[in-house]
Amino acid sequence: MTIDHSPSTRRVRLGANYVPSDGWFYSWLDYSADAVRRDFEDLAGIGLDHVRVFPIWPWIQPNRALLRQRPIDDLLSLIDVAAEFDLDVAVDLLQGHLSSFDFLPSWVLTWHQSSVFTDRTARDGISHYVRRVSAEIATRPNVFAITLGNEVNNLWPANTSTPAASRHWATELLEVVRAAAPTVLCLHSVYDDAWYAPDHPFQPADAVDLGDLTTVHSWVFNGTSRIDGPLGPASTSHADYLVELAAASAPDPHRPVWLQEVGAPRPDVPPEHAAEFVARTLDTVAPNPALWGVTWWSSHDIDRRLADFPDREYDLGLFTVDHRPKPAALALAQFARGAAAETAPARPAVVCPIEPRREPARRAEIAPGSEFHTEWVRVRQTGPTAIVTPDRAADGDYLAARDIGPVPPTDAAQPATVHA
Amino acid sequence: MTIDHSPSTRRVRLGANYVPSDGWFYSWLDYSADAVRRDFEDLAGIGLDHVRVFPIWPWIQPNRALLRQRPIDDLLSLIDVAAEFDLDVAVDLLQGHLSSFDFLPSWVLTWHQSSVFTDRTARDGISHYVRRVSAEIATRPNVFAITLGNEVNNLWPANTSTPAASRHWATELLEVVRAAAPTVLCLHSVYDDAWYAPDHPFQPADAVDLGDLTTVHSWVFNGTSRIDGPLGPASTSHADYLVELAAASAPDPHRPVWLQEVGAPRPDVPPEHAAEFVARTLDTVAPNPALWGVTWWSSHDIDRRLADFPDREYDLGLFTVDHRPKPAALALAQFARGAAAETAPARPAVVCPIEPRREPARRAEIAPGSEFHTEWVRVRQTGPTAIVTPDRAADGDYLAARDIGPVPPTDAAQPATVHA
Repeated sequence: MTIDHSPSTRRVRLGANYVPSDGWFYSWLDYSADAVRRDFEDLAGIGLDHVRVFPIWPWIQPNRALLRQRPIDDLLSLIDVAAEFDLDVAVDLLQGHLSSFDFLPSWVLTWHQSSVFTDRTARDGISHYVRRVSAEIATRPNVFAITLGNEVNNLWPANTSTPAASRHWATELLEVVRAAAPTVLCLHSVYDDAWYAPDHPFQPADAVDLGDLTTVHSWVFNGTSRIDGPLGPASTSHADYLVELAAASAPDPHRPVWLQEVGAPRPDVPPEHAAEFVARTLDTVAPNPALWGVTWWSSHDIDRRLADFPDREYDLGLFTVDHRPKPAALALAQFARGAAAETAPARPAVVCPIEPRREPARRAEIAPGSEFHTEWVRVRQTGPTAIVTPDRAADGDYLAARDIGPVPPTDAAQPATVHA
Repeated sequence: MTIDHSPSTRRVRLGANYVPSDGWFYSWLDYSADAVRRDFEDLAGIGLDHVRVFPIWPWIQPNRALLRQRPIDDLLSLIDVAAEFDLDVAVDLLQGHLSSFDFLPSWVLTWHQSSVFTDRTARDGISHYVRRVSAEIATRPNVFAITLGNEVNNLWPANTSTPAASRHWATELLEVVRAAAPTVLCLHSVYDDAWYAPDHPFQPADAVDLGDLTTVHSWVFNGTSRIDGPLGPASTSHADYLVELAAASAPDPHRPVWLQEVGAPRPDVPPEHAAEFVARTLDTVAPNPALWGVTWWSSHDIDRRLADFPDREYDLGLFTVDHRPKPAALALAQFARGAAAETAPARPAVVCPIEPRREPARRAEIAPGSEFHTEWVRVRQTGPTAIVTPDRAADGDYLAARDIGPVPPTDAAQPATVHA
């Protein structure tokens, strides 16, 4: 697989979610371009082409009416440092949520408690932030995407929402981003409860309808590692499974899917298996014709002197805090040096029992460990395997557009496998 | 009244709660010694002798295990700038709460939700912060007091507590301050629900038992302005009333009371009455033998471009955001130039129906508008008037220690007034 810097091709982009090695995201408060330079040197050295970066919302907008210029300038500096290493940059705006911590400004907390999703005043304030930061970073040619925020659905339930409110919120803010930054990808981001939890107020329809492509975040601690361990097919195919679910759920058969986060978390993936987990996960997902790119979580470990992170968060880095590449980094580098991925023509498909976009209440039927997931994992071991929703299982044009072979009609309640 | 810099005398100290004119407390994120210098020049110019200052906790301790040096250095710089103007400094540590906004770190919020008052891990983190900042600022000779935090009881109910937990929390942290900063006053601070709200989990006993003196915050919007308007005796004697309540409730008859906050809030006090309100409030409280000092809230207005403050918070400054002295500043300056306050010997007293320290469930009986408060306000119009609890109304040594004339035995349920 070769890395191509043009987002218009189908070749897979490869990058890392940037976690600063010195002081985690707290380092924004004491920004050092040199510290960023040293970190980005690590990432460019293993052949990555982009970074996804995370400013901290309340430090930029401590008052609803105050947008501080200095941290915006620091963000621009970081983007420019990335350019020194030919790294393109995706910026997430509303952090918001990072590795179990929520950063929320005092103007939406306690005596000012208001939901960032439903309160009109809070939303207007957020729009102001989104507009300003988007416009500023759009001045930089190496910025290719703006995401509303990292896994914004983790801000619920602390911030109340409903499916309608969540969708309206994201729709409105994406329009703000698009107007302020018309040349970049405008994106929404949710963690996988949006795909698997029946009552979750962020839904598959949001993921596949909103923004310029679909983003998915694949974490084996959310179910698959309990099925067959760190190197079992359920674990190492979970990223591909989510990409397929997203592709199958999108109205547009050509809508790309960005595997925006995937990582090798302890203890689900013990350190001695991390490299193999990386290789198998990437080899499994790479041939997927819907795959737009892969962004590993994360660039660097978290210093163990910092407190209160879930234990699995500390050691997710490709590099240690003192810049030593870990086995996962070497596996990623090897993947980056590989040949372009060949997509399998006329793949077989497993017919999904539900239409995730229209039947969110049935999401449990496609969650890890479900009958459907189990069947897909079984078939996936024989080679690239698509997912198709029952309503389109007989639509030849649609199937062809997704490189799927003919699928006979099937009872939606029973997964049906058809080899092309 | 003359201003005396020695805290060991009974002369009243006069200062201001420092609200930065440019960017409110958000200015800590972009600290400028020159901006502070310009503000402190205003305050020294009207004869004040001290400032009370408020660092923002989560910006110094964004992670439980990370205390950033730069904002600590900024705080030390501010203290040194104060020294240039012969201003002494009181530092409040845990902000915490300021003018309706709570600043809380992500490590006690949402996915890490834990009460700062009751969670052992959170309290250990706070102890770490309190120890470090106290030790750093104690190196400066013009720091005379450290308060745990501004009106920490406003952090409840967002942070759960009980009367026992609140007291234990403050007791423990005051010991940390004392060990780290043995030469300064170690203080607790609560707003007046601790005195007036029967179910409030912070109690008068905390105020009068803990720390080196009692602090009270007098705000007429909490009840008295509704009784008789901006210049009525209930409003202009409320500061004196709270000082008396605190003095009457303390086991030690010599325990000083610091009127740590008092201000002239709109619309309770219209601008055209602000100067007179200041003069009458100060003239009423100044002769109180328990009074240690007065610290006006606040030094400077809040820029109306900043959003979401309660309307009354914007115009509390002695100075505008562009450094023009307001009538309240001129009234304060005139007071500062006046003669030393003469305390009235053998004042009359009104016997309180309850012992606030032992009967917190009966606090409503001493709240503004209560029968007791009404009677005290009536008598206070004739001159300095003490409050005495029923258990000590016949204790001659005690009464003498508080400059109170003889008080005959009385039914505690009926306020009794005795002129000396």
